[in-house]
Amino acid sequence: MEKEKISVPGFLASGVSAGIKETGARDLSLIYSTVPARAAGVFTTNAFKAAPVLVCMERIKAGRAQAILTNSGNANAATGAAGCQDALDMSKSLSSFMKIKDELVLVASTGVIGHRLPVEKIRKNIPAAVKGLRPDGIPEAEAAIMTTDRFPKIAYQKRFIADREISICGIAKGAGMIQPDMATMLSYAMTDADIEAAALGKAFRFAVERTFNAASVDGCMSTNDTAIILANGCAANSMIRVGSRSFSIFRDLVCEILMKLARDMVRDGEGATKAIEIVVTGARTRGEAKKMAYAIANSNLVKTAFFGGDPNWGRIIAAAGAIGIPLPVDEVQLFFEDVPVFQHGRGMDSDLTSLKAIMDREEIKIVLKAGMGTKDWRIFTSDLGFEYVKINAHYHT
Amino acid sequence: MEKEKISVPGFLASGVSAGIKETGARDLSLIYSTVPARAAGVFTTNAFKAAPVLVCMERIKAGRAQAILTNSGNANAATGAAGCQDALDMSKSLSSFMKIKDELVLVASTGVIGHRLPVEKIRKNIPAAVKGLRPDGIPEAEAAIMTTDRFPKIAYQKRFIADREISICGIAKGAGMIQPDMATMLSYAMTDADIEAAALGKAFRFAVERTFNAASVDGCMSTNDTAIILANGCAANSMIRVGSRSFSIFRDLVCEILMKLARDMVRDGEGATKAIEIVVTGARTRGEAKKMAYAIANSNLVKTAFFGGDPNWGRIIAAAGAIGIPLPVDEVQLFFEDVPVFQHGRGMDSDLTSLKAIMDREEIKIVLKAGMGTKDWRIFTSDLGFEYVKINAHYHT
Repeated sequence: MEKEKISVPGFLASGVSAGIKETGARDLSLIYSTVPARAAGVFTTNAFKAAPVLVCMERIKAGRAQAILTNSGNANAATGAAGCQDALDMSKSLSSFMKIKDELVLVASTGVIGHRLPVEKIRKNIPAAVKGLRPDGIPEAEAAIMTTDRFPKIAYQKRFIADREISICGIAKGAGMIQPDMATMLSYAMTDADIEAAALGKAFRFAVERTFNAASVDGCMSTNDTAIILANGCAANSMIRVGSRSFSIFRDLVCEILMKLARDMVRDGEGATKAIEIVVTGARTRGEAKKMAYAIANSNLVKTAFFGGDPNWGRIIAAAGAIGIPLPVDEVQLFFEDVPVFQHGRGMDSDLTSLKAIMDREEIKIVLKAGMGTKDWRIFTSDLGFEYVKINAHYHT
Repeated sequence: MEKEKISVPGFLASGVSAGIKETGARDLSLIYSTVPARAAGVFTTNAFKAAPVLVCMERIKAGRAQAILTNSGNANAATGAAGCQDALDMSKSLSSFMKIKDELVLVASTGVIGHRLPVEKIRKNIPAAVKGLRPDGIPEAEAAIMTTDRFPKIAYQKRFIADREISICGIAKGAGMIQPDMATMLSYAMTDADIEAAALGKAFRFAVERTFNAASVDGCMSTNDTAIILANGCAANSMIRVGSRSFSIFRDLVCEILMKLARDMVRDGEGATKAIEIVVTGARTRGEAKKMAYAIANSNLVKTAFFGGDPNWGRIIAAAGAIGIPLPVDEVQLFFEDVPVFQHGRGMDSDLTSLKAIMDREEIKIVLKAGMGTKDWRIFTSDLGFEYVKINAHYHT
């Protein structure tokens, strides 16, 4: 990023203060495409979906959108039927001011739950948000979706695809429910690529599965998690279609962007002191590899051992073994980076000094070879320390 | 318990120090029935089962046992084929000294994992353990299976069943993987009831499912978890058979005994400051009720909120909603004790003062009415505080 101006042709963005956050910080974020864009999204699977999530899920079915309006400071979650009306009113306040089709507006909210959305504050500040729209306004839009994030999360790339230089920019906040009171994972990607709707959805779901869905801080899922991609076609490349070479390149590009955001979210996990990459190989199915990786990542005993710098391989194999997959004990191998710690059904007499040195790193890679098949999965997680307890115990409803 | 002597006719017990624990505390526990007893057991489902678990699982198939020999200080887990031989040698050292059938000896180990069992220390101290056998030796046998437990866990009852007074005593240590390095849940029940093998197994599995399997501290499962019941028939009651009235009474008695032990284990969870009862009603199946209860109990955000005394109902509904069960949001109701906090798809404006008063209690009951059916489940859990992190981060392998 450095000094390069972050912008994506055809996209304008802004972030203003609407007074929803008590601090007076930016809390109203607007992303706008000068032409209606193709759109795809992935949303929380929580049964208790926040009102704006329900609105977005319905609207994105049409595969088109022109604006994403987000407020921080209030999640509009657990607000019942009134909350749905508030989300619709929030959308209407933008579409009527900008004179765009209401169904092309996507809305999102993040913050405290169980309180009515202050729609009037949003409505009053729509003019300022629209007036603030600028090609280089993405960092401000990003700032306005942040809640307790310690640093902004923006990823930006350009690449030649189908004879044109394509730009793509992604922004994000939070990491699942790592923050006080279920702070939400929100992420928006903007690209000027011209890509058919089916291809956009396919590439985005592929990338989300391997990035955001492979990042876990505490295994908790928010009511508001929302990831959206808009592609406005302003690059005027030959249309990217499923199965083509340009599709593969585009899909990998989206993966890169989201991966940077996902890693940043894990690094920014509340109380996190370490980033841990957990790789499971040799599983029978991708699903089982994923299940084992999550079992390890979400074990409090594993997380606290990483926090304490203890190379406690026993907790890792016990976590992997606890989920009903019939691991062939004598075939399983576990590595801390490239140091084997468990093989042939027993712990190796590994050099404790080199293990401790590995555990003291800020980024640690653990590899579990399941010895059952050929499928693998990789996820990122953080450790569990005092700070997590402090933040999450002392936040008050 | 009080001053009443705890003993079960036909059972002798002892606990001695074999020098496995560095502290010199009791670490070799022996339970012996003067006649071969009917036996049933429930063991960890972890793929990485410790050697003694593998031995017990094989032997208990015959439904008979006469002795349970347990060492603490070393788990004999992740020790490969040599570990299995060590477990068999441990058994043999008892059976040959006592001149009983080797296959009637059950063995268990708990403590650090990945280190060879010091079988020689055990062998040398078998004579002392046998010499120490006494009808009132159960508390000593219990002391010798403890690791980091803060208090002993013993439950004892007498009841008239089938025209005879039946005695039953249960002892336990740990609570799943709540302790440093996967300390194990071990529990042994002794009764003088005469009960057919099938009835004993059925009653015991029923009780374990509703007690130990309904207690969760950190959702982690050890490699060594073992629960065994021995029934030696010394009460000379008319044989208890499946389906009879005496069976129901016996089964409920076993439930009572194990429930006391399970509650004590949760209360003794490392770092626990509160005991939380989570009741899920109105589920479609018992399995779904259980799944929701565990999702709530094992959510770090829920656990830390309880630690902090924060009536954060949002985290509870989000945890229940995150596991793929299509909860009817508008039908779901959540209560803290008898105070409703969520109904009709939104948070109630509950009296915060009375909620805070509830959260300050040492025992708190949460009821989630799922509004989907008639099945329910109840589990016990503890909160997550600084002490848990401290203990589990700073234990070293």
